[in-house]
Formats: sequence, C-alpha cells, structure tokens
Amino acid sequence: MDTHDEKTARVADVPTAHRRAAVIGGGVIGISWAGLFLARGMDVVISDPRPGVRDQVLAGLDEIAPALAELGLPTENLTARLRFEADLATAVADADVVQENGPERLPVKQQIWQAVEQAAPAHALLATSTSGIPATAIAEAMRQPERLVVGHPFNPPHLVPLVEIVPGERTSAQTLEQAHAFYTALGKKPQILRKEVPGFVANRLQSALFRECVHLVAEGVVTEAELDEIVTGSIGLRWAAAGPFRTFHLGGGPEGLPHFIQHLGHAMEASWPGLGAPSFDEPTVALLTEQAEQAFGDVPVSELAARRDRAQIALMRALAETSGTSSNTSSSTSSRTHTQATQA
Amino acid sequence: MDTHDEKTARVADVPTAHRRAAVIGGGVIGISWAGLFLARGMDVVISDPRPGVRDQVLAGLDEIAPALAELGLPTENLTARLRFEADLATAVADADVVQENGPERLPVKQQIWQAVEQAAPAHALLATSTSGIPATAIAEAMRQPERLVVGHPFNPPHLVPLVEIVPGERTSAQTLEQAHAFYTALGKKPQILRKEVPGFVANRLQSALFRECVHLVAEGVVTEAELDEIVTGSIGLRWAAAGPFRTFHLGGGPEGLPHFIQHLGHAMEASWPGLGAPSFDEPTVALLTEQAEQAFGDVPVSELAARRDRAQIALMRALAETSGTSSNTSSSTSSRTHTQATQA
Repeated sequence: MDTHDEKTARVADVPTAHRRAAVIGGGVIGISWAGLFLARGMDVVISDPRPGVRDQVLAGLDEIAPALAELGLPTENLTARLRFEADLATAVADADVVQENGPERLPVKQQIWQAVEQAAPAHALLATSTSGIPATAIAEAMRQPERLVVGHPFNPPHLVPLVEIVPGERTSAQTLEQAHAFYTALGKKPQILRKEVPGFVANRLQSALFRECVHLVAEGVVTEAELDEIVTGSIGLRWAAAGPFRTFHLGGGPEGLPHFIQHLGHAMEASWPGLGAPSFDEPTVALLTEQAEQAFGDVPVSELAARRDRAQIALMRALAETSGTSSNTSSSTSSRTHTQATQA
Repeated sequence: MDTHDEKTARVADVPTAHRRAAVIGGGVIGISWAGLFLARGMDVVISDPRPGVRDQVLAGLDEIAPALAELGLPTENLTARLRFEADLATAVADADVVQENGPERLPVKQQIWQAVEQAAPAHALLATSTSGIPATAIAEAMRQPERLVVGHPFNPPHLVPLVEIVPGERTSAQTLEQAHAFYTALGKKPQILRKEVPGFVANRLQSALFRECVHLVAEGVVTEAELDEIVTGSIGLRWAAAGPFRTFHLGGGPEGLPHFIQHLGHAMEASWPGLGAPSFDEPTVALLTEQAEQAFGDVPVSELAARRDRAQIALMRALAETSGTSSNTSSSTSSRTHTQATQA
C-alpha cells in the first residue's frame, strides 16, 4: 500500500505523459525496451533500417513475454500497439519518448540524434541506451544538447531494475527530471549520476570485480564454476540485500562505517596493490574458454539465461515482499503505474 | 525432494559423525558458529578465558535465535547443550570438531593450536575461522600440520552459505574432505580453494569492488547511498542469481563466454588501468564518514543489520524454491540434515 501511494505520487510528478515511444534499433536491447514499454501500455514504433528486423523483433518479444508476465505485467496482444517505421524522422514524429539503441559508434549516434532532434516533438524525452559513449560527445552534433541524456539499462532492460541516467555537460536539469520520472513510472529504479565518467558506475564496478575473478582463475586458485559458487553464496547474496557501503557500515559494529574504516581501512588499502592485474592473453583466454565449456557447455545459453531470469524474478519478488520498495515485481503497483503512465 | 535426497546422500558421506563441537573464542564469529551448531543439534563447549564471556555469549545467542528460526532450524532450549570451559585442553578433550575464532594474531593462534592438537581426539576436525592468516603459518607450530585447515565463514556464519575451506601447504586431502562433509552437513555451501592466497577469494573480490566504490564516491560521481542503490538494483541482484563468469557467459550470446571475451575482452582489459586507485586519506575518510551519517545515521546499526538479515533470508528462501539447490533455507532439508548430522 505504501509503495502503491509512493508510486502514484511519483507518477503524478511526470511532467509529460509518456504514451508513445520510438525505439531506435531492433536489437537485443531495443527489443527488451520495446517489450517493457508495450507491457506498460505504451504505443511503440521501432525504427531499424535492417531487413528482417520485423521477424527478429517479433521472435524476441515472444521470448521475453513470459518474463514480463512473471513481473506481473499484462502480455496478451503485446504487439497490438507495435509498429515498424524504417524512416527515422517519421518514426519519432509523434513520440513522447525516444530510446535509442543504435550501434556503439559515435558518428552513427551523432547522425541519428541530429535527425531525431529535428523530427521529434519539443516535449519528447531523448535518451540513448549507450553503455559507453558520453552524451556530451553525441550532443556535440545537436542544436539542443540540453535535451539528450544517457538512459543506460542493465541488460536485460525489461528485467533489471537499474537505469543509469547520465547527464552530458550540457544536459538540462529538466531533462534529468523527466528521465527519472519516466523510468520510475516504468517500474525501474533509475539513478542519476552526478558526473559523466567512462563506463558509468555499474559496469565499472563489474569490471573491477571481474578483473580479480580472471586473476584468481588464471592463478589456479579456483575454477570459474567454483568462483561463481563463492560469489552467489556470499557477496552476491549480500549485495542483493545491502550495497557495499551499507554492508561495511553493518560490519563496523554499533559505530558503523567510520569505525570499520578506522580499524580495517588501512589494512584493506594495503591489500589493494596485491590484487591481480591479469590480461586476456592467449593462455588465459584458452583456460577461460576451456573452463566455460566444462562449467556451462552442457546446457544451451538460452536455457541458462531463462533459469537466471527466473531466479532473478524470484529474488526481486522476495525483496519486494520484504522491503516493500521494489515496484517492478508487484502487479498491483505495476497496473497502477500502467494506468498513470498512459494517461494522455 | 531432489535436494532432500542429495542432502541425505551428502550427509551419509560424512566420514565421522560430528556431534560435539568445541568453539574457541566467544566473540561475534564464535557466537554465530555456536548458535548454528546448537540449532543443528550439536553439543557445544565454548572456550574463552575472558571474564563475562558467558553473559556475552548468551546475549548474542538470543540476538541470532530469530534468524536461526527463520532458517527453519529448531531454537527452543538452544542453550541446553551449551557449556563453557575456560581451560582449552579440557574444552577440546572430547570434541569431534574444533572451530577456532581467536584473535587474528599469528603467535596467539600458533599457541592455541599447539595446545589443541595435543588435547583433541585424533578424529577431530581442526578448523580455524581466520580471515587472513594462512594455515601454513599457523601449522608451523604443530606436530600434525596435516590436520589443520582454514574454515573461513562469511559473516555472519549462521546466515551466509559460503565457507571457504583453505588448505595449508601440508593440509591433508582427508582433512579437506572431512571439512567439506562437515560444513555441508551443517547446510552451508563450502568451497575448497586450490591454493592458499592472501585474503582468500570472497574478500579479495569484495576488496576489488570496494576499491572502485571508494573511488567513485571520492570523485563525486555518486554518493554512498546512490552507489548502494545501483548495486542492489543491478550487479548485486545479478550475482545472487548467477556468478560473474556465468553472467558473462550469458552475455556472450549463443556462443557464450568465449564469444564475450573475443568481442569485449580487450575493451574491458583496456578499461582496467582507468579504474580508481583511491586511498583512505583524511579528506576521503571525512567524506565517507559524513555520507555514512547521512545515509545510515537515522537507524541503529543493529536494526539495519536485522533488516539486512531478514532480506537475505528471504532471498535464500526464494533461491532455494527456484533452484532447489540451497539447503540452508528449507526446514524440511534442514531438519533432515539435523537428524543425520547428529547421529552418533
């Protein structure tokens, strides 16, 4: 009931109704966004010049529909409000939201956004899913750089709560606010970064941890499968319930994080130079490949991914029931969000 | 039903019945181990020379009893089979398992283990909870170094599934097997490391990630609270369901991890030198302290920890129901384990 009201309040703050989405690029990320937008009751136009994109998108939507349903979202006639429009200007002409998932190449994205800003309505939210190209660089080719923002999802966008909202140097506060309101209304958990930094936050953290993972496997301390078991049985479980700072705050006793840093900070800092600096050289790649075959080779990736998604949905539901803060897993708040988000 | 049978099978493999535990050290870790051992039906002797340890332990057991109950373990009369014995030799004289949680100082641990190996039965499992001192160094003072092994829990031991079993240079295969069987019978998820390495595995990974966390907060990209939200909403959730290697295997498409490394490995490697190298200098510590106060200051640490534990138990239960692989959260498998583990 709390989250219900919160949600309603938040959604009421949305400066513009977001009913019509233009999704640029019909690849994995575009399909995932499109599926979520459709399940949330939005009209969706997919713009992708590649031949055969229609079949690819429809097949992709069939694949993710069960996960959307498990999230408590309506998935019957999911494609009833889906259109395809190869011409970019026509596709965005009446969009409330443009979510771009084009190739990760600066000139391509600059070209796309030059065309979009000329054809999209003045009120439209302009967001790029880029995982690495700064909005500042993309917006150099735009007349209204204040309108462009990074809305970086964590794959798959229809499932993982986080959306990193990353401003370019000239992105306006209003654009950030609009992006935050939109992704929140979708049931996501957006976070606005305070600075543009390569890799943003989640991927930098993932990269820092994976670097040590590669080191430990290359050194023969553990296998890939053993390391994965260690993570899911300790820090993964922990960080799903409480982030790294909260975790060490709780590790500091009654005085919390300051006490933790006072007593263990310098030992930890002293250990940092001892962490691994591996490289994907031939022997390392050969070892990682061989162990991946042993660990995961018996089951198709699609089946492993489906299992992972089912487990993740179960975790999201459990957290929502415990904390009452996740809105992405409760059909009641979902449908309410849906109603609100689609009011013209 | 599957896990039930698996569990029964595993427990049947325990080479020695583990009915009597000697827990050395009545601090936070010792109390947590003692609580789990008692809830699993074991007799427990706590040996700690400090005055007032009895009251401290009994208060601590009261605090963790609710979590043990939520794990599906019996907690009525939890202390009925608990004894205190300050004299080390007497405490371990009839132990099947000795779990040492003494101060993290090599000379102290060497002294403790010299005394223990002389007084403990020949069949007893000898395990130290040390988070950083190699068994090789501790065992230098022992006549039977092959008997000592690191059994490093992730705090709190009664709750987090992982136990890192780390052999010293002279630890025997039989000792490793015995440790693995014992912690498995307790419902934990033990992992045997193939090499002794400083910090073992989970804490090295945690340290690698936290290093970047400190960097991003010190750089003003995010606050502590924002970074925690990013982690719980993305990589934390992900790594609770699938470890880092499985995650990137699924990120590689149908060809899995090898394809992922081929296409993204070098970009990731190129990004590693750009990761942060922060230090706990005065301004950084001041900033982290101030933000911890803002983020967590309103609620007592004990209450935050209780919430974290409730959320973690809910996650463990959800994973157990999804995958049927966790035995630490299902009362049916727990009680069965209990029965098996306590057969003399």
